[in-house]
Amino acid sequence: MNKVAIISTGHSRFGKRQDKTIRELAFEAVKPCLEGVGLTQKDIDATVVGVAGDMFAQQGSPAACIVDHVGLNPQPAYRVEAACATGSASIRSAYGLVSSGMHDMVMVIGAEKMNNVTSAKATELMAMAGDSKWEYPFGVSFPGFYALFATRHMHEFGTTKEQLGMVAVKNHHYGSLNPLAHIQKEVPLEEAVKAVPIASPLGLYDCSLISDGAAAVIMTNEERAKQFEDPVWITGIAAASEPMLISRRQTLTGLPSATLASQNAYKMAGIEMKDVDVACVHDCFTIAEIMAYEDLGFCKKGEGGKFIEEQQSYIGGKMPVNVDGGLKAKGHPLGATGVSMACEMVKQLRGEAGKRQVPGAEIGLTHNVGQSGQYVNVHIYRR
Amino acid sequence: MNKVAIISTGHSRFGKRQDKTIRELAFEAVKPCLEGVGLTQKDIDATVVGVAGDMFAQQGSPAACIVDHVGLNPQPAYRVEAACATGSASIRSAYGLVSSGMHDMVMVIGAEKMNNVTSAKATELMAMAGDSKWEYPFGVSFPGFYALFATRHMHEFGTTKEQLGMVAVKNHHYGSLNPLAHIQKEVPLEEAVKAVPIASPLGLYDCSLISDGAAAVIMTNEERAKQFEDPVWITGIAAASEPMLISRRQTLTGLPSATLASQNAYKMAGIEMKDVDVACVHDCFTIAEIMAYEDLGFCKKGEGGKFIEEQQSYIGGKMPVNVDGGLKAKGHPLGATGVSMACEMVKQLRGEAGKRQVPGAEIGLTHNVGQSGQYVNVHIYRR
Repeated sequence: MNKVAIISTGHSRFGKRQDKTIRELAFEAVKPCLEGVGLTQKDIDATVVGVAGDMFAQQGSPAACIVDHVGLNPQPAYRVEAACATGSASIRSAYGLVSSGMHDMVMVIGAEKMNNVTSAKATELMAMAGDSKWEYPFGVSFPGFYALFATRHMHEFGTTKEQLGMVAVKNHHYGSLNPLAHIQKEVPLEEAVKAVPIASPLGLYDCSLISDGAAAVIMTNEERAKQFEDPVWITGIAAASEPMLISRRQTLTGLPSATLASQNAYKMAGIEMKDVDVACVHDCFTIAEIMAYEDLGFCKKGEGGKFIEEQQSYIGGKMPVNVDGGLKAKGHPLGATGVSMACEMVKQLRGEAGKRQVPGAEIGLTHNVGQSGQYVNVHIYRR
Repeated sequence: MNKVAIISTGHSRFGKRQDKTIRELAFEAVKPCLEGVGLTQKDIDATVVGVAGDMFAQQGSPAACIVDHVGLNPQPAYRVEAACATGSASIRSAYGLVSSGMHDMVMVIGAEKMNNVTSAKATELMAMAGDSKWEYPFGVSFPGFYALFATRHMHEFGTTKEQLGMVAVKNHHYGSLNPLAHIQKEVPLEEAVKAVPIASPLGLYDCSLISDGAAAVIMTNEERAKQFEDPVWITGIAAASEPMLISRRQTLTGLPSATLASQNAYKMAGIEMKDVDVACVHDCFTIAEIMAYEDLGFCKKGEGGKFIEEQQSYIGGKMPVNVDGGLKAKGHPLGATGVSMACEMVKQLRGEAGKRQVPGAEIGLTHNVGQSGQYVNVHIYRR
């Protein structure tokens, strides 16, 4: 398989961005992505756009207006969608376009504008990604799905509400160091644990944010990458899927699809888990980060709670996780999230992550989950 | 670039399919696609799902429930969307996955269920793919966009309402020979020309159908393709995009993006237009087929009306076009359309198209357009 590198990144500020439309947010990411490496739109051969929801964008087929606005006509474009894993699935699709030789230079843009609607409406729109026959009509929303995971994890392994809160504390700590994060303030453990319940046992601070934002990367082949400084290589790229209905899962304490995808990604990259220096995992809810520790092999099954309690996922611990603030604090504009994770890996592996730099990071991992596991993408990055 | 073949196809009946949900329609295509070559779901390494509208499916992120229902967990999956070019963009994305070596055997499923809502609502949902700021709010729907094209084409080249009607007559003629078509009856020219106006100068018979349906193909690499009978190769695959706003187009008598994409596709396939034996073009409206004749080089600019009047796009003419009935008579379930075109090419090049067979067809072309040109995909197929 031909090698594929990321040679540039761009990232809007995440947050409640009432100042910009989705196409303007996309441009906020595309502009530095191009200018940072001295390219213009003419140098891009094709675009893959990741947007999760037509209904959030209030624009059918949203890729076209984004591609037009950022100046990428008449080059080919399409949209990729995989719910909350839209961004990483877009990178996956672009990897195919580049590695096959179909295109030399592909721009991936992930974007979402979620605050066009109220938080309650946003939660409902996301809930429509639950099964339209057997889940959504009965009122299950995503906090509900993850509350089931949390309850079962607590029951089987003794995971505590405090341990969930510790994930929030860590991610808000790192979010406070990220100038592009949606929320840039520390959250004390007591506040996290005592917050208003959303779907018991999950409280407000167990839930990620409803954010607007965009991120972009430029992907290219080995020959073209040589012309740029510090390319970051995608050395492993794998994905897997869970059954649709949560009631038909083989377990509610983890995602077997995440384990499968990570094993395939490690294998493709020719590494073992212990070789990874830094990870971005899909902390849509605090329990999701704890399950990710286990699914990806950072710790043994059932020991995810202990892993955060021992601060093993802080910088200096066994595996620094979400040191950009994660979905929890940096924010979660659905289509942008997976691309934002790639941007963070590029920063980390280049040693450009400032106050949240993992010292000497050489290999990075991203784990991006759509719905409640129906789409899992794991990528390995290497300088 | 590594070669990619289609080794099997499956196709549901198109029509008002109140008997089935979108996932059941998908299975109606997937089942024969697998069984036809003695494969099972376990043999498929990854799935690309083409669905254009969340809002038609009344299911957020519709790929997951389709993949689950047809039995393709835990393999990787994502959705591709490019409005009415969703199906061909899905094939394009899958081409990258196979040609790069990421996957050996990829299933592409295109599906749409449009008749969950009324025709008026369906037209409105489609209109939301027009620009949400400068087009949709002012009431422009797709018949309106194409009425502008038709008016200008008539003005500049003297194209007549009768010539538009002749496209409908041809496509309904061939649709009457296609047992999977939405409408399987001949339409007399007089009826076509005198039909109720939809957006002047376009009448009812100038418009394609609002259909439910699904189509599927299995794509594989050269080595694996050898194990199957009669692989059909994708020898050219190219795409291009138009500016978003119709008011900013360089012309209203054609799609420069279609010309660009076709030239790139011919070049990649190492052929000239005259080598093509049979074509499926995007006849969302009769004027669109006439413009396609010109954009793809089947005739000179401005002579599309004459081309149909001389029956050059019938079997026996210079270039048989839409001999499966096209979007006009076979139907246009948005996400399925591009995949359905690929299915027809496989049938034609294998000599299995029955009453609508183009004798001795060896090279085929598909032309699938999203929105009003924002996404154009041209593929070349060869036995």
